[in-house]
Amino acid sequence: MKQETVTLDHGGGGRASRDLVESRFLPRFANPHLDRLDDGAVVEPPPGAIAMTTDSYVVDPIFFPGGDIGRLSICGTVNDLVAQGARPLFLTVGFILEEGLPLRDLEGVLVSMEEASHESGVSIVAGDTKVVPRGKADRIFINTAGVGHVPDGRDVSGHNAQPGDRIIVSGSVGDHGIVILAQREGLAFGTGLVSDVAPLNHMVEEAWSAAAGIHVMRDPTRGGMAASLNEIAAQSSVGIRLDEKSIPVKEAVSAACELLGFDPLYIANEGKMLVIVDPSDSEAALERIRKNRYGKEARIIGEVVADHRGRVFMDTQIGGTRIIDMPLGEQLPRIC
Amino acid sequence: MKQETVTLDHGGGGRASRDLVESRFLPRFANPHLDRLDDGAVVEPPPGAIAMTTDSYVVDPIFFPGGDIGRLSICGTVNDLVAQGARPLFLTVGFILEEGLPLRDLEGVLVSMEEASHESGVSIVAGDTKVVPRGKADRIFINTAGVGHVPDGRDVSGHNAQPGDRIIVSGSVGDHGIVILAQREGLAFGTGLVSDVAPLNHMVEEAWSAAAGIHVMRDPTRGGMAASLNEIAAQSSVGIRLDEKSIPVKEAVSAACELLGFDPLYIANEGKMLVIVDPSDSEAALERIRKNRYGKEARIIGEVVADHRGRVFMDTQIGGTRIIDMPLGEQLPRIC
Repeated sequence: MKQETVTLDHGGGGRASRDLVESRFLPRFANPHLDRLDDGAVVEPPPGAIAMTTDSYVVDPIFFPGGDIGRLSICGTVNDLVAQGARPLFLTVGFILEEGLPLRDLEGVLVSMEEASHESGVSIVAGDTKVVPRGKADRIFINTAGVGHVPDGRDVSGHNAQPGDRIIVSGSVGDHGIVILAQREGLAFGTGLVSDVAPLNHMVEEAWSAAAGIHVMRDPTRGGMAASLNEIAAQSSVGIRLDEKSIPVKEAVSAACELLGFDPLYIANEGKMLVIVDPSDSEAALERIRKNRYGKEARIIGEVVADHRGRVFMDTQIGGTRIIDMPLGEQLPRIC
Repeated sequence: MKQETVTLDHGGGGRASRDLVESRFLPRFANPHLDRLDDGAVVEPPPGAIAMTTDSYVVDPIFFPGGDIGRLSICGTVNDLVAQGARPLFLTVGFILEEGLPLRDLEGVLVSMEEASHESGVSIVAGDTKVVPRGKADRIFINTAGVGHVPDGRDVSGHNAQPGDRIIVSGSVGDHGIVILAQREGLAFGTGLVSDVAPLNHMVEEAWSAAAGIHVMRDPTRGGMAASLNEIAAQSSVGIRLDEKSIPVKEAVSAACELLGFDPLYIANEGKMLVIVDPSDSEAALERIRKNRYGKEARIIGEVVADHRGRVFMDTQIGGTRIIDMPLGEQLPRIC
C-alpha cells in the first residue's frame, strides 16, 4: 500500500492546502479564532502588558523518548513566556514540511501538539504551512510564537538578579540533551531515560502565588544551565555561586556525561526552570514548585553574590571551586 | 580570502550565538525590548483587541529583483496583520540557517529586514536563530509572527462580505510570482519587472481614515487573487463577480502568462491588498488608496453578489463569463 505523504500541493495555498488544514489541523486545534480561517486571528488578552517570544524547532530525531518535535514546539514557547513572568495565552504555529514527509508522522506530531496545548491551556490561534521540495529541509521544522499576559507587579528579566537571591532549579539537569544524543547515536546508555519536555506554566503560577519576589526566570535549553546562568550574571552584573552537591543530576545522565566527556551543566533541558528569587521568598517558592508534578526534585542550588561580577562559579563536591564558563559553541546540534 | 559563513556554533546557544546576535542583529533592530536580550519581550499594546499572525518564508531564490526573503518576511506578516484590520506593532523573527550560508548573504537579508521594519514602523521584539547542518535546509528560512492593535469598531474578516460590496485591488496582479519564476528559470521575459513586495499598512490606514465600511481585506499571496476571492466567497457564502477589463495586469506579466499558460489571477502578489468595502465608502477608499505610492494603480474590479454563492466568476473582455475556480495545488513552489 502506498504511504500517504506531504506533497508540494499541500503548501500551494490552494485546495490541497485547504484540505490539509481542514482535515488535519482544525479538528485538533479547534477554537473560535482558528476556525475562522482568516489570515490571522483577533484576540483579547487582559488589559496591560503582554509578553512575546518565538522559537524554531529543528530537533533530530523528530520523535524521541518522552516527546517529539510537536510537544517541544508548544512547551518551549510556553516556557519562554513563563520565563518573562507571563501567563501563556495564544500561540501561532508555522510548519515547514519536506515533500515526502509521511502524513502519519505529521499526524503524530499534531497529536502531541494538541495534548501539550491542552495541558498548558494555550490556544493555537493562527498557523501557516510551507512545503519545500525533497532534500531542501529535514522532514519537519516548526516555529511557534507566543503571547502571554503579564499580571501587574511582575517584573522578571535577566537584568534583575540581586545579591542574596537564591537560585532554584525545578529538577534534574541534562535529561533532554542526553536522550537526543543517545537516540541519534544509537547509544545504549540512555536506556530508561526520557526527555523532560513539559509545559511549566502551572508549576510557575503556583510559585507566584506564594512568592512575589521572583526576579529572574529562564528555561535552560541550548547551552544548558551554564549558558543561562552566564547570561544572567552578565545581564545583572552579579556573580553566581553554585553548590555542586545540591544540583540534581540523574544517574544515567551523569554516567553518559562521564563516558562522553560532557558536563551536565552544559546539556539542554526542555522541562526545567531556573528561578532566581528573593531569599525571603525562596522557601515558599521551592515548596510550591515541589508540589507540581514537574517540580518534585526542585532544589536550591546556589545564590547570587556581589563579587565575581559576570562570572558563574561552583563549589565542587571535592571541596574546590570551579569557574563555569559560557559554552563556546555547539556541543550537540539540533537538540531543539 | 576565505569567505565567512554560518557555522553550527552560531546556533548553539553559547558564545558564538551571542556574538552573532550582538554583532549582526542588535545593531540593525535595536529597540529597548530586543536590547534586553531576554528570552522574549514584554510590551504594552494599546488596550483592546490584538491581531496575531504568522508566516514562514522559504522563497527561492532568496534575492530577487525588487526584494529578498528579508523584505518579504517583514512585509508579508505586516500585510497579514493589516488584513485583520490591525495596525502592526511588534514582530518576532525566527531564523533557520543552513551551515555554510555566506555571512554576506545573511547581512543582505538583515539590511532588508531593517529597512522594511523602519518603513512599516514595526519593532522586532524577540528572535531566535537555529543552524542546521549543510544539506538539511536551503540557505535560509525565516518565520515572522506579528501582533497588531485592532482599533475599536473595526471588524474585518473573510466572513463579512455582503452583497453590493465593491472589490478594490490596490494595483497590478501577478508581479511577484512572475519575477520569481523568471529568476528561477533564467527566463528573459521578466526584464524590467520587479516584485511588488511592500508593507501596506500606511496605505490601508489611509483608506480607514476615509472609509469605515471596510468589511474584508486579504493580501493575495499564494494562489493569487483567485484563491483569496474563492476563500472569501466560501466564508461569506456570497458570489463574487469580477470585471476582467478593470483588473490591472502589467504587460510583462500578461505576456509571460500567455507564453507559459498561467493565469495572472492565480499568481502570487506580495504588495497588493484586496479591499472589500461597502458601496457607499468605495470611492472614498479608492481615492485614499491611490494617493499612496503602493496604491497608484488601484481599481474597483468587481462586486459581491447574492447569487452564485461560494463562486467567483468573471465577465471577460470578449463578453463571456468564466468561472474562476479555487486553484487545485501548487503552481509555483517556494514563491514566498
